[in-house]
Amino acid sequence: MLRRSAYKNLQQRASQLQLKRSASQSVASIYFPSEPTAPVLKTESIPGPKSVELNEELGKVFDNRAAYFVSDYKQSIGNYLSDADGNKLLDVYAQISSIALGYNNPELLKTAKSDEMASAIINRPALACFPSAEYGQVLKDGILAAAPKGMNKVWTALSGSCANETAYKAAFMYQAQKKRGSLDFTHEELSSVMENKAPGASDSAILSFEKGFHGRLFGSLSTTRSKAIHKLDIPAFPWPAAPFPKLKYPLDNHKHENHAEEDRCLGELEKIIKNHPTDIAALIVEPVQSEGGDNHATPYFFQGVRDICTKYEILMIVDEVQTGVGASGKFWAHEHWNLTTPPDMVTFSKKFQAAGFYFKNPDLQPAQPYRQFNTWCGDPSKALIARTIYQEIEKYDLVNKTQEVGDILYKSLDTLLSKYPTKMKNLRGENFGTFIAWDFTSVLERQEFLDTCRQYGVNIGGCGDSSVRLRPTLAFGEEHAKLFLGIVEEIFLKLYK
Amino acid sequence: MLRRSAYKNLQQRASQLQLKRSASQSVASIYFPSEPTAPVLKTESIPGPKSVELNEELGKVFDNRAAYFVSDYKQSIGNYLSDADGNKLLDVYAQISSIALGYNNPELLKTAKSDEMASAIINRPALACFPSAEYGQVLKDGILAAAPKGMNKVWTALSGSCANETAYKAAFMYQAQKKRGSLDFTHEELSSVMENKAPGASDSAILSFEKGFHGRLFGSLSTTRSKAIHKLDIPAFPWPAAPFPKLKYPLDNHKHENHAEEDRCLGELEKIIKNHPTDIAALIVEPVQSEGGDNHATPYFFQGVRDICTKYEILMIVDEVQTGVGASGKFWAHEHWNLTTPPDMVTFSKKFQAAGFYFKNPDLQPAQPYRQFNTWCGDPSKALIARTIYQEIEKYDLVNKTQEVGDILYKSLDTLLSKYPTKMKNLRGENFGTFIAWDFTSVLERQEFLDTCRQYGVNIGGCGDSSVRLRPTLAFGEEHAKLFLGIVEEIFLKLYK
Repeated sequence: MLRRSAYKNLQQRASQLQLKRSASQSVASIYFPSEPTAPVLKTESIPGPKSVELNEELGKVFDNRAAYFVSDYKQSIGNYLSDADGNKLLDVYAQISSIALGYNNPELLKTAKSDEMASAIINRPALACFPSAEYGQVLKDGILAAAPKGMNKVWTALSGSCANETAYKAAFMYQAQKKRGSLDFTHEELSSVMENKAPGASDSAILSFEKGFHGRLFGSLSTTRSKAIHKLDIPAFPWPAAPFPKLKYPLDNHKHENHAEEDRCLGELEKIIKNHPTDIAALIVEPVQSEGGDNHATPYFFQGVRDICTKYEILMIVDEVQTGVGASGKFWAHEHWNLTTPPDMVTFSKKFQAAGFYFKNPDLQPAQPYRQFNTWCGDPSKALIARTIYQEIEKYDLVNKTQEVGDILYKSLDTLLSKYPTKMKNLRGENFGTFIAWDFTSVLERQEFLDTCRQYGVNIGGCGDSSVRLRPTLAFGEEHAKLFLGIVEEIFLKLYK
Repeated sequence: MLRRSAYKNLQQRASQLQLKRSASQSVASIYFPSEPTAPVLKTESIPGPKSVELNEELGKVFDNRAAYFVSDYKQSIGNYLSDADGNKLLDVYAQISSIALGYNNPELLKTAKSDEMASAIINRPALACFPSAEYGQVLKDGILAAAPKGMNKVWTALSGSCANETAYKAAFMYQAQKKRGSLDFTHEELSSVMENKAPGASDSAILSFEKGFHGRLFGSLSTTRSKAIHKLDIPAFPWPAAPFPKLKYPLDNHKHENHAEEDRCLGELEKIIKNHPTDIAALIVEPVQSEGGDNHATPYFFQGVRDICTKYEILMIVDEVQTGVGASGKFWAHEHWNLTTPPDMVTFSKKFQAAGFYFKNPDLQPAQPYRQFNTWCGDPSKALIARTIYQEIEKYDLVNKTQEVGDILYKSLDTLLSKYPTKMKNLRGENFGTFIAWDFTSVLERQEFLDTCRQYGVNIGGCGDSSVRLRPTLAFGEEHAKLFLGIVEEIFLKLYK
């Protein structure tokens, strides 16, 4: 815990670090003219006493043991997350990578206050049975306007987990239909499925990668391989995992080794597919394994995965739940790969607020209705928010702006980290927007850094075993980047001098 | 399709069936002073041309083949669902049982237009990491104030499927923890779970009942046993199903037989539990199997299930996704049972708009954080709506009102149906609010009835193989019941004269 004297120092330094704003600097100055110019520190440490009290109270009825602090969203603005004690933290975590345009964004507020939003909230439809007259157009102007190249259909869901799971369902039904051809379901299929047995219940698999994260419900958790604690004691399907490349950094110094590593992983992938005792309906892969530690691979690897999928008629699902919607410097991170043929499905959630999966092949829609189906099939109120997010990103060219800010962050961090080679390594995310991470040499040192950041008024998150990940909003501008870098430099000096 | 002459007749009859309203009649007259007093029919048939056109357009990008018609929610009011052609249908289906207080309810509109709603929408938090200062109180005033007797904690989710699946996860972790005691995870558990294998991945099971419906994601679908089409081609866990009583109607005439049937099912349940090759962590049961055909059982049966669960240390999960929130004449349908000990978990969604599960035992919260966890852990915007729904239900005593309306419906339908004993049978839902259903003698006759209802301006749904289920809102009053009964009588006369 910081003592009062340290706190005063911090507050002074925060003032010194304040940067002059100009309208040209970032979209934040347009959206948030009264955004703070530096963290505001009110209590000796964070969480402050009010946060602690409120969290204790909430903990009696709700599992909040993962809470960093209790937030005051009304007082949050732009890139600053306010806590219940009035501290305002510069936020480079953004609700686990899911706030797109900053807190209390005025354009999102207009959407939230609109009559169509009110109607969507109070008249929540069963979308597949009673779609609203507007839903098609809302999709076309928002979620579908943002669709990855080559995709023109969407199935909407409610979370990243169910986006992935409905994509898996589409894959299983597609592959079974392909085998079945024009034949009808057999009597054996119809009866065995009611006992959860083959042939009616599929014994096919979804392949995922070691360290991948795809959600926490039973199907998605079976493909999640990030950490044991996410999976322990929960039943899982006997589905295979393939190795994901472990690249060495800096990339330029390890080109040959990394290429060999990616070849090794592609070879293993093909071997696993060939040897798997049952069919593999689809493979799912993140452009960057985020929860698993911000593990990147090169376009060469992903093209290789695409080729293997094509060769073995396995559907390729790209999980863009965390990487999608701009932060990578492309709207969809898999656009970095320049694949010769697009993925079969792309899933989304988080920063889009709405969730679901894109596809093109109409056969990914099962031949019979009521198979890809549920009560709500998405949520029009989220589709409205997604539309505004998409339109604002376009209006202010926020994907390219994020790439520019990411360049500043990456280059400065590269210089900064190189001063502490025994403490930090493996800076990742060059030319990948603000989707940046690096490793500490131990879990404890990572934790010390994260905790110190919070005391300096920076909200930041970890991933993997000992990585720090940056996940700021798309309204995070050069001025925020420089402020952040200044604070980080200060923290390094304090911790490692 | 109805021809013009038939349409004119219909419109005339609708006018004749109009009933005088008085303020005392129902809460609808308070909420919706301009609610129609009879269906409004504008097109020769439903779906009308605009519906057909809009649906065709939407179908290019979204799987809407289950659509009844395209709706105009702005023009919908109270118990009347407007379609895109301006027809206004008396709605006894309510978006698959999920509209609680009628379309465009003015109190929900206030909530939807409030500043706290706007903040919840545009600043959507990762609730377990950064809970809002208000979330605890919002839960206490709404979702938790409505908690079933004996339950004081909640885990919030996004849909009925994930409400059930997070409850399953709680059950698996609870049972594993009980076995493990004070011991830590073993090395073998930590490594095997990463390969989706026991002992790290549980080989325990969730038991459900034949014809039960618990959702469509991979874990919930493994417990769903309603229809083959819901399950075909999707991998499922080897979990057991027990028979659910098939009661004979009228209940009074089959007391002895029904009692024996319930004893048979309880015996089978116990046998299945004893013979199952692996542990059974929990059992899930609906108070009324809704999707599976509105199958009821008596309190005797459910007390028997409770006793067996206690005996074998199996957790009892009651799935109130469809039965919860008032329609049964109790706030929670399982209150009809007067169990000697409450269920271990109760799940909810649909009419509450918010989803999740209730519990009391603090050990149903895993000992470690980040196990019952995900990015959003619910949605405060839905918790706000649930709070208003709860408060309105209390304010207008809507649960008891629903029981009164249900009595009128049940008694009149009993008389009506008895005139056509070869066509319809098994009226269900006596003293069970408006949660009423009956069977036709064939799928085709059921379909003919549902289709004819739509042409008469009544939106109604089926379930099971040949059942019709009533699922009106809680603002469905005596005047709506009488109007509905009049139209049904007219349809019977037309179809069966």
